[in-house]
Amino acid sequence: MDDSNTKLTPLADLGEFGLIEKLTASIEIKSKSTIKGIGDDAAVIKPNKNLLTLLSKDLLLEGVHFDLMYTPLKHLGYKSAVVNFSDISAMNGRPTQLMVGIGIGAKFSVEAMEEIYDGIKKACEVYDVDLIGGDTTASASGLTISATVIGEVNTKNIVYRDGAKPNDLICVSGDLGAAYMGLLILEREKKAFEANPNLQPDLSQHDYLLQRQLKPEARTSIVETLQKNEILPTSMIDISDGLASDVMHLCKSSNTGCVISEEKIPIDQTAFDMAKEFNIVPTVAALNGGEDYELLFTIDQSNFDKIKEIEEISVIGYMTDVNEGERLITSDNTSVELKAQGWDALKRKVHENIK
Amino acid sequence: MDDSNTKLTPLADLGEFGLIEKLTASIEIKSKSTIKGIGDDAAVIKPNKNLLTLLSKDLLLEGVHFDLMYTPLKHLGYKSAVVNFSDISAMNGRPTQLMVGIGIGAKFSVEAMEEIYDGIKKACEVYDVDLIGGDTTASASGLTISATVIGEVNTKNIVYRDGAKPNDLICVSGDLGAAYMGLLILEREKKAFEANPNLQPDLSQHDYLLQRQLKPEARTSIVETLQKNEILPTSMIDISDGLASDVMHLCKSSNTGCVISEEKIPIDQTAFDMAKEFNIVPTVAALNGGEDYELLFTIDQSNFDKIKEIEEISVIGYMTDVNEGERLITSDNTSVELKAQGWDALKRKVHENIK
Repeated sequence: MDDSNTKLTPLADLGEFGLIEKLTASIEIKSKSTIKGIGDDAAVIKPNKNLLTLLSKDLLLEGVHFDLMYTPLKHLGYKSAVVNFSDISAMNGRPTQLMVGIGIGAKFSVEAMEEIYDGIKKACEVYDVDLIGGDTTASASGLTISATVIGEVNTKNIVYRDGAKPNDLICVSGDLGAAYMGLLILEREKKAFEANPNLQPDLSQHDYLLQRQLKPEARTSIVETLQKNEILPTSMIDISDGLASDVMHLCKSSNTGCVISEEKIPIDQTAFDMAKEFNIVPTVAALNGGEDYELLFTIDQSNFDKIKEIEEISVIGYMTDVNEGERLITSDNTSVELKAQGWDALKRKVHENIK
Repeated sequence: MDDSNTKLTPLADLGEFGLIEKLTASIEIKSKSTIKGIGDDAAVIKPNKNLLTLLSKDLLLEGVHFDLMYTPLKHLGYKSAVVNFSDISAMNGRPTQLMVGIGIGAKFSVEAMEEIYDGIKKACEVYDVDLIGGDTTASASGLTISATVIGEVNTKNIVYRDGAKPNDLICVSGDLGAAYMGLLILEREKKAFEANPNLQPDLSQHDYLLQRQLKPEARTSIVETLQKNEILPTSMIDISDGLASDVMHLCKSSNTGCVISEEKIPIDQTAFDMAKEFNIVPTVAALNGGEDYELLFTIDQSNFDKIKEIEEISVIGYMTDVNEGERLITSDNTSVELKAQGWDALKRKVHENIK
């Protein structure tokens, strides 16, 4: 990507097997449970005793989940791995292995595929995850990345979505809404570029917001922090659709209602300022933007003293009886019904409403 | 699909969560190792002691792996599951769980998605596999099906590609080339239909060939038969690319050469006749057609007496020292170099050569 004069290699020069060999040559196995990675009909893992195996998969499609006009391929590879790791964190587990399937159009070069793989391998390195297999195939249309993550969790530590009880505190890690602001900036610059291709956008002051959109991280460290502090959440989910939609998932699974306090929702200052610039109420972005990959979880009230000492975690409300419904206490102290307008790939509501 | 007057439901009427709920409502968990299936951030499995966990994934893309013009959606769902089960059989294991990600264009209806899911669920039922999760998302272009299978195998029974030794016998289950003949028939009928849409093709006499292409089966029964007869293959692979390409995978992994006897290659009579009709040498179709999903494996010569009693298995050659190369003994008793022209999704050689 640094030298645009480099000669690019057409994919057909290598063929499927050659390409896989090239892309996977440098992969080393690190996890003790990985018996066999790439190179056979299936990968082989040997879970330890007392551990449960966790599995999750995500499909990222060009034109739906990403726009190649402003998404660097390496970041795309990184993100496709990390959003899967995040699902394992949401079960209070640790990601251990990853399988990746990539469908690529003929317009891509071998070097482009290497960029994607470099991003995937980088994510695996950062999170100590073994890349154990996958599938690379031609695509008649857009770029498709399908990742399956394998993780593990001690039987006694697993956290589902359905364990919350009325009066449990609702907690969230990090801050919300920044990834969505990053997306809006990229969409704005894309339009400006389409109108005038000579315009060079200055994106340097938006580092944090763009990073949250293009290169998100999984909050594996929060899982570790909770374990270190001996806090076992009663329910947990990662925020991919948006806080409103995801807290409603917890309520539905746990058969509870909830009260979220608008003023407690953690929002980064730059996200706040950018929302104002876009004429969006910052908490609306935080509630509905999605793709934050923060952890949303509930804890028993007895853990309040422990949780309030952890800087990265905010208590934003509490669970209620299911009959009390899902409520938002606004900043002017009015109680309104919580509405989910989260990212729904089939309806794309948020996007269409705001754009 | 029986009543074309049925009113179809646009996908947007249900949204992602509604769709997943509808599609997965009837799924029951059967395997003891499945702790939690669909409905959380990750699925949870608990492998038994002394078992290894096997994982494999395949990506099926519209326009590359299937043509919706002649592929019934239910068969497509069935096939997308079965080709993954086949990978587990190729490790001498048993498929236990399946995860499926589907990317669908807006042109599809809820009913179309249900057809695909019905096929997937049918395959899971037939093979006693739990459907434990997945991801359903809009696609800006074609239909994408990404399946990940989980399987298990006793530690002492696992078979890799790399265990073959010189003089081991090369065996194959069932018969080869029929799936490719089925594909050629479908492509021919498509062309006839495009030329004259009023023409109704009569495909009834090609039942076996079409079934091999559109609704293949995984040879899980062969794995059971081998175990019942106490035969542990020294190496194994499933035939997805074609016999020539796949035996060369075994040779490369095991660092051996091989001799394949052309006249020993099992070919069904209808496939043989159809190859003649297409002016293709039947063994060329069997060597390079691919998608047979039969098992190709090697055994120690001491197992010959046992293997020759099993009707569904043919001994087609033997492994040699790596220096002797990969050879084919033709029907007129000439030794030629074995060439792989198997299905390579990035080059599509067979297809372009033969069509």
